[in-house]
Amino acid sequence: MKKNFFVFLFILAFVFQPLYAKGNVENKSAVNTVTGEGQAKYVFLFIGDGMAMTQITSSEVFSTARSSKDINITRLGFTGFPIAGLTTTHDAGTFITDSASAGTALSTGNKTLSGVINMDTARKQKFKTIAEYAKDAGMKVGIVTTVTLNHATPASFYSKVPSRNDMYDIAVQLAQSDFDYFAGGAIVQRKGRNGDQRDAVEIAKANGFTYIDTRAGFNALRPGAGKVIAVSERLQDSEAMPYEIDRKSGEISLAGFTGKGIELLDNPNGFFMMVEAGKIDWAGHANDAGAVIHDVLAFDAAIRTALDFAKKHPNETLIVVTGDHETGGMTIGFAGTQYDTFFDKVALQTRSYVAFDEEVLKPYKARTAPSAARLTDLIPAIRQSFGINFDTLTPVQKEQIEFAFQRSMGSEQVRSFAEDQYLLYGGYEPLTVKLTQVMNQSAGIGWTSYAHTGVPVPTFASGIHQEIFGGYYDNTDIFHKLANAMRLKVN
Amino acid sequence: MKKNFFVFLFILAFVFQPLYAKGNVENKSAVNTVTGEGQAKYVFLFIGDGMAMTQITSSEVFSTARSSKDINITRLGFTGFPIAGLTTTHDAGTFITDSASAGTALSTGNKTLSGVINMDTARKQKFKTIAEYAKDAGMKVGIVTTVTLNHATPASFYSKVPSRNDMYDIAVQLAQSDFDYFAGGAIVQRKGRNGDQRDAVEIAKANGFTYIDTRAGFNALRPGAGKVIAVSERLQDSEAMPYEIDRKSGEISLAGFTGKGIELLDNPNGFFMMVEAGKIDWAGHANDAGAVIHDVLAFDAAIRTALDFAKKHPNETLIVVTGDHETGGMTIGFAGTQYDTFFDKVALQTRSYVAFDEEVLKPYKARTAPSAARLTDLIPAIRQSFGINFDTLTPVQKEQIEFAFQRSMGSEQVRSFAEDQYLLYGGYEPLTVKLTQVMNQSAGIGWTSYAHTGVPVPTFASGIHQEIFGGYYDNTDIFHKLANAMRLKVN
Repeated sequence: MKKNFFVFLFILAFVFQPLYAKGNVENKSAVNTVTGEGQAKYVFLFIGDGMAMTQITSSEVFSTARSSKDINITRLGFTGFPIAGLTTTHDAGTFITDSASAGTALSTGNKTLSGVINMDTARKQKFKTIAEYAKDAGMKVGIVTTVTLNHATPASFYSKVPSRNDMYDIAVQLAQSDFDYFAGGAIVQRKGRNGDQRDAVEIAKANGFTYIDTRAGFNALRPGAGKVIAVSERLQDSEAMPYEIDRKSGEISLAGFTGKGIELLDNPNGFFMMVEAGKIDWAGHANDAGAVIHDVLAFDAAIRTALDFAKKHPNETLIVVTGDHETGGMTIGFAGTQYDTFFDKVALQTRSYVAFDEEVLKPYKARTAPSAARLTDLIPAIRQSFGINFDTLTPVQKEQIEFAFQRSMGSEQVRSFAEDQYLLYGGYEPLTVKLTQVMNQSAGIGWTSYAHTGVPVPTFASGIHQEIFGGYYDNTDIFHKLANAMRLKVN
Repeated sequence: MKKNFFVFLFILAFVFQPLYAKGNVENKSAVNTVTGEGQAKYVFLFIGDGMAMTQITSSEVFSTARSSKDINITRLGFTGFPIAGLTTTHDAGTFITDSASAGTALSTGNKTLSGVINMDTARKQKFKTIAEYAKDAGMKVGIVTTVTLNHATPASFYSKVPSRNDMYDIAVQLAQSDFDYFAGGAIVQRKGRNGDQRDAVEIAKANGFTYIDTRAGFNALRPGAGKVIAVSERLQDSEAMPYEIDRKSGEISLAGFTGKGIELLDNPNGFFMMVEAGKIDWAGHANDAGAVIHDVLAFDAAIRTALDFAKKHPNETLIVVTGDHETGGMTIGFAGTQYDTFFDKVALQTRSYVAFDEEVLKPYKARTAPSAARLTDLIPAIRQSFGINFDTLTPVQKEQIEFAFQRSMGSEQVRSFAEDQYLLYGGYEPLTVKLTQVMNQSAGIGWTSYAHTGVPVPTFASGIHQEIFGGYYDNTDIFHKLANAMRLKVN
């Protein structure tokens, strides 16, 4: 019995240790140390590109305002996770990161310069990614994104390039990878910038991948399909998946690609899956809150498929949700609406800015000479697309829209980066961005930038070892926390 | 030995229990349950009014940019706390709270309407505050703020009124309270709105308070002084303490008022102390990032005095830092500066917008006829106050400043709330707010509102039972968490 006594003393000390460690303000490394038993074997890293607190809360306020007059906020699935932390996002060169250096931080634990993927600031040393470590440990790996498969964030999990613009090099590294599942948007510049290289999809096929770009083919995929690249049948801007607000019935959603990934990757050795909602960022650049919010809700739906899976493996699944940075300087509140918000107005939006450009403005331009163009021609389509009622606009708002319309209809496309032009429209179609801004402002949503901003992002965690994701830490720490929870030996 | 064995099993189960509770996604009440031993006996609640993540990170970026070319962010004292959580701030009537309903939520755990202090939405039922519960339990109570002592946030800890504008009623309730220490700005409307009521300070004296409004008197205060009301010798806008950026050497800082509070309140039965940095909010309303940042840094200095005290009572002290809401829609990033920030420019600012109004613009107006006013007269003072170099401004910026100057010098004060006028200047002195905006934008800081916004705020905790402040929860939960940590029985 004496021996047992000391064994218990030892266990007690071990168990109490994290409580003491927590009390220590200075000991930063303590947060990375998993103290509990067990291995996170089924690991999901969900990255909302351009998703910080405002994007998330806006989606909650939208869901609440759409369904009731009540103020009690309807939580998303992931904001109900037991653990919430805060994550700094600056990179090696700037307080405002881009997605390449942010992706590198999350996937390898290293700070680098904006634009660089998984290489050091001198663009010499290459970094190994969490997905590669997982693969080496015998786990399967899946990479899912709403944007193109060789875009910066997904690329940060499988490629190493001096510049995110080396799209063909990234595509080839995707094709040559031993990962198991890539899904979402297309592979851009498949044949290189000038179309004169060997098709990356052919390289992937030669490397054992099945390439699918039809809905029927995707739906037919079953476990045992082997290595798969699955691309959305319909592609939108820059060959990405359509915005959720523009997705038509039956078209595969981010949740669909995530759910299929789970089905194909599930195996006794576990898996690591990165799922990116990449167009939250793109919509933020264009200051289109409606498109942001619907993509956050689609992201939440994808996360719910992981939560459903976690119910089957509660002691072995870890789900982490974070953002790589904020985009647009989005705020819940605007000078013109002061303390009020009218998010029900966002519910009237039926098209993203991209769909408005493609389905309304471009056809109108094609059939109308600049001298014959009249804003009144577009008023019905504007109301139908953005819920904007011209009868209730202020004179200043009408003037701004008319001015932007003239710019859009002017000599080809007036996209000079003259100061006021950029500040007003950020290089987007002037009429469209002005319409989303007017609609957003009337709903009580403000924007300050067409680029990223430097505010920290929240990180949510649920599942085994979730507790190490609490607190305020850097994006590079997420790599170490994941490796720790997965019991991966990393250098 | 058999008995010991079961005792240890029992302890083990007890110790592991919080780990299990954490794993439960649905059990929201779990976060409020203190599982560890001991009572939080020395409790600090620091409230940054208008302080959300951007205000905090801006202060960190400023501290970093001011001292080095390095990007590694210099942490504030409180952002290094072991626990960080996220807190929603909506009130009973709007997604964008005011300080009265936010104060009521934090101090009593109840949602109410904007403008109401510690009463229900029907303005009938009165709520008991955490400070009153603490007092009833034999603890001493201190209330410290940079703004006036009967302003909404401090008032939320001792008064119950249907409207925050009932300043005299609040002052009388302060005077009649049995709290031990009030310090910071003045008591406004001491004699009522029309100056015809009994002086609240006289009521306070009759109730046993010592009233001090000189620096010498304050510095002479020693333990045993009894109940004290201590007011800053120099007062600035609306009888608040001066902004930190305007504080002169030797004038009492927020840290000074906090440190003295600790000295006077320290006793074996413990104390509860609420310390508000109220002018972070006021500077946010005016879109003055320099004033925001210096007041956040002064707030951090005040928190450090509590950290020093905690070293003496490590197992009995709890420090919680939160915000009541965001103000101004502040962002680290602006369309014109895209991915760059230049926070070193903020370090060139030497005056708050208030000090510029009072020390530069008002005297200039007094000595200059509108027809003789020329912006060039003020260029040296503008450069000295805000670091704005007119030689490097764009034509659009110069035009905006000239236009605002004309507005400021126009017929008395052009403060009509015509749409564009409000959007441009928010009811502030046009020249001054335009100057802070131009300076902020050139530093890479954007603003979207002159009011509050609806983004959640971070909450940081250090000390005994700190762990219950992790996660994502509502501002009303903070009351329950504090009561729980303090072992107070509340209904």
